[in-house]
Amino acid sequence: MPASGRAAPTVPQEDLCDLSIREAAKLLRQKKISPVELAEAALDRIERLNPGLNSFITVTADHARRSARAAEREIARGRWRGPLHGIPISLKDNIWTRAIPTTAGSKILAGFVPRADSEVAKRGAEAGAILVGKTNLHEFAYGVTSDNPHFGPVRNPWNRERIPGGSSGGSAAAVASGMCFASVGTDTGGSIRIPSALCGVVGLKPTFGGVSMAGVVPLSRTLDHAGPIARSVADASIMLEAIATDYPAAGIPDYRKLDGLGLKGVGLGWPGHYFFDRIDPEVGELVERAARVFGSLGARLETIPMPRLAAALLPSTNDIALAEATNYHISQHYFPDRAGDYGEDVRHRLEAGAKVLAIDYLAGLARRSEAGREFEVAFERVEAIIAPATPAAAPRIGQREINLGGAPETVRSALVRLNRPANFTGHPAISIPCGFTREGLPVGMQLIGPRWSEPRLLSIAAAYESATEWHSRRPRLPCLPAG
Amino acid sequence: MPASGRAAPTVPQEDLCDLSIREAAKLLRQKKISPVELAEAALDRIERLNPGLNSFITVTADHARRSARAAEREIARGRWRGPLHGIPISLKDNIWTRAIPTTAGSKILAGFVPRADSEVAKRGAEAGAILVGKTNLHEFAYGVTSDNPHFGPVRNPWNRERIPGGSSGGSAAAVASGMCFASVGTDTGGSIRIPSALCGVVGLKPTFGGVSMAGVVPLSRTLDHAGPIARSVADASIMLEAIATDYPAAGIPDYRKLDGLGLKGVGLGWPGHYFFDRIDPEVGELVERAARVFGSLGARLETIPMPRLAAALLPSTNDIALAEATNYHISQHYFPDRAGDYGEDVRHRLEAGAKVLAIDYLAGLARRSEAGREFEVAFERVEAIIAPATPAAAPRIGQREINLGGAPETVRSALVRLNRPANFTGHPAISIPCGFTREGLPVGMQLIGPRWSEPRLLSIAAAYESATEWHSRRPRLPCLPAG
Repeated sequence: MPASGRAAPTVPQEDLCDLSIREAAKLLRQKKISPVELAEAALDRIERLNPGLNSFITVTADHARRSARAAEREIARGRWRGPLHGIPISLKDNIWTRAIPTTAGSKILAGFVPRADSEVAKRGAEAGAILVGKTNLHEFAYGVTSDNPHFGPVRNPWNRERIPGGSSGGSAAAVASGMCFASVGTDTGGSIRIPSALCGVVGLKPTFGGVSMAGVVPLSRTLDHAGPIARSVADASIMLEAIATDYPAAGIPDYRKLDGLGLKGVGLGWPGHYFFDRIDPEVGELVERAARVFGSLGARLETIPMPRLAAALLPSTNDIALAEATNYHISQHYFPDRAGDYGEDVRHRLEAGAKVLAIDYLAGLARRSEAGREFEVAFERVEAIIAPATPAAAPRIGQREINLGGAPETVRSALVRLNRPANFTGHPAISIPCGFTREGLPVGMQLIGPRWSEPRLLSIAAAYESATEWHSRRPRLPCLPAG
Repeated sequence: MPASGRAAPTVPQEDLCDLSIREAAKLLRQKKISPVELAEAALDRIERLNPGLNSFITVTADHARRSARAAEREIARGRWRGPLHGIPISLKDNIWTRAIPTTAGSKILAGFVPRADSEVAKRGAEAGAILVGKTNLHEFAYGVTSDNPHFGPVRNPWNRERIPGGSSGGSAAAVASGMCFASVGTDTGGSIRIPSALCGVVGLKPTFGGVSMAGVVPLSRTLDHAGPIARSVADASIMLEAIATDYPAAGIPDYRKLDGLGLKGVGLGWPGHYFFDRIDPEVGELVERAARVFGSLGARLETIPMPRLAAALLPSTNDIALAEATNYHISQHYFPDRAGDYGEDVRHRLEAGAKVLAIDYLAGLARRSEAGREFEVAFERVEAIIAPATPAAAPRIGQREINLGGAPETVRSALVRLNRPANFTGHPAISIPCGFTREGLPVGMQLIGPRWSEPRLLSIAAAYESATEWHSRRPRLPCLPAG
């Protein structure tokens, strides 16, 4: 028992980890639970679940306990920093943390201990969040399976033979399984939204430039975004509020104003091209059902043609991502100097990036404005666009190809193609759970909005969330007592 | 005689063309001469000299006469727009002019008549300048000889067997020979400063972004600048004031405040690397003599090491310029669609641009900041850096190579290499006459300053100019009466 004179906990420790941030924050503020207790619950769950899920590369138990004690003292003294004060979170391991190893999931950065926090880590700490660990990821965030050659594959909490998606797979699996309340991931071609969709949690890729990338190991500088992964829209909002650095004031959400948005007359776009091509019929049905839920809440659904998106998009995003990634790795003398230290898939992509022509890179940048205009035209008529987050639920670990609409496609290509548009154009996009396949795997729906529309986008997502029960379903985790 | 009751001209028409803008403006304002008279003098000189110099692709005689009559009426009514009101100027033919053909010196744009003015043309017209014609240039501004395969070579007024330099060769030759008072050129790798140096006039490449490129046929978007070519520093200042669009207020010069800057204690940098490598000894002597003039005016000369400039610069500027140029020509469906319509040299460069790798392009962009820092460090100690504008005076028309310091070098490479640094980093740079070779060819000196330091840079140049007589020497033009 800590020294302060709190009331006895009203929630069994086992369940503490499954609270929402909002619920936990209330109990913390009321001193019904202590940050230390919450941290211990999370560390205990990590100890039991992480061996099976492999979500963490580094568990920062000592650091977490110290921070939790400090938070406990502050709250006892009446200084409450806000809803993240005392909440256990994790950071993807490509995000610099002072005095805590940051590997980016690579052998190349083994032993690297940053001397400074990334802006995101600093903001999280200032908000009072308790860092419990650094999460596993696809090597250098450069892939979507999180099958890491150096630290082993992250496993999907809903089915441990399945990938969690990536590259922020460890973050999404940790959040879904209650090893932490939220995480910060990065998203260059879907790396927040894909694992959020495949693990049944909420992932927000913010407007480009809104969250500082200072101190984040880059993948592709003009496509990289950092953003929250959480178990509910409100929790994602709380996280974004804490880490938002370069937003216009009106773009920063306020979790206290999220709920109760009437959707009456709110225009939502149903894209007539691109986003519903070559998707698993089960996914299509679930997203259509979600659209009907929006309709039943009063939203006006409108078909939004985006005829030039496909041509503008592919293969331009690929050229940009490949070239920028290789440029970065060359600039750091990682590649080709240490080519043998990369996993095969990442090495091949770095090799491919060295061959991209500058004229294709530049043409890609130009098509970016073109693709952005397709969205801007749509946003004159609707407030958000509905799309699947991924064309299928979680593939198996080791699976190379997926067959959607007749022709086999690589898992990578399938999982990124519905996500890349918002990386390409910089629009904010959220993935929220919208149901389960017959096999019991979660499916995610994307909502894409105008730049800096995060407050509205989160409110629309929250309205859907509160009208459905998808977000409250949690995976059955074998080594925990049945719920 | 025009209708208005002006006093009789006090200057013979022949000499009108050799006035400075400041002098002509004074006479115009005092109604001692009329804009119509000035335009006729310029058109008359064009008629006599242009066949020999080939400076103009289009002479806009009707337009000039109409504009001059309008200016005359305005001035008669007492509306004086400023020092360019009624002054004959030209524009390089890659600058859009409404209802006036704009060829960019190419066959590909033959017959193209813009429906709108470029920002620069609009500003010039608003200042009351009288456009007398569009000047010849290296095809698509993509070279430094102005030996145009479609419109014939521009010839240097000081020696018609010599190139005027390029790409703004027609502008510099027209200004030097008095066919107009000033011109606007463009500078991607020296295209304002090189012909200004080789023709013995003043050319200013402004700070990157200060003068709008809207409506200018691009060469390499991140290196392109538009700026003035004139016969004196004050005239260049007057032109820049008119066309400056995106300057911070303190960056816009004021020609009335140019003169009388005491150079006592003003720090000037003498670069210890790069700028004095492989130059013609005659050029070196003249620039050294100029430095001594600055010293005699009280300036403090300081050796400025720029050890990393060469490594940062070459071949990165070349990669950037090549790739961006080819990207533009592809985007317009000029290349490779109409490859046969280009001159051989430009076609070869466009082909080379198609082969540049994106990683080299991106590495080049990164080196740009590095090169910029070398300048910024220097500008903590000095207000401007002195350098030759070109390593040699004007080569012969048709000459391919030049031998400086032992090894032969292409004329192109030799003429751009001292100019590219300021394109690469975006710093403002002015070329001013600093003497003549024993063969009687003009030599130019560059002054490079901090970003947005144009007022100061022009004042420093004006102090040198008023202490020397180089700028008042004019070429002997055989078909004009001896001066």
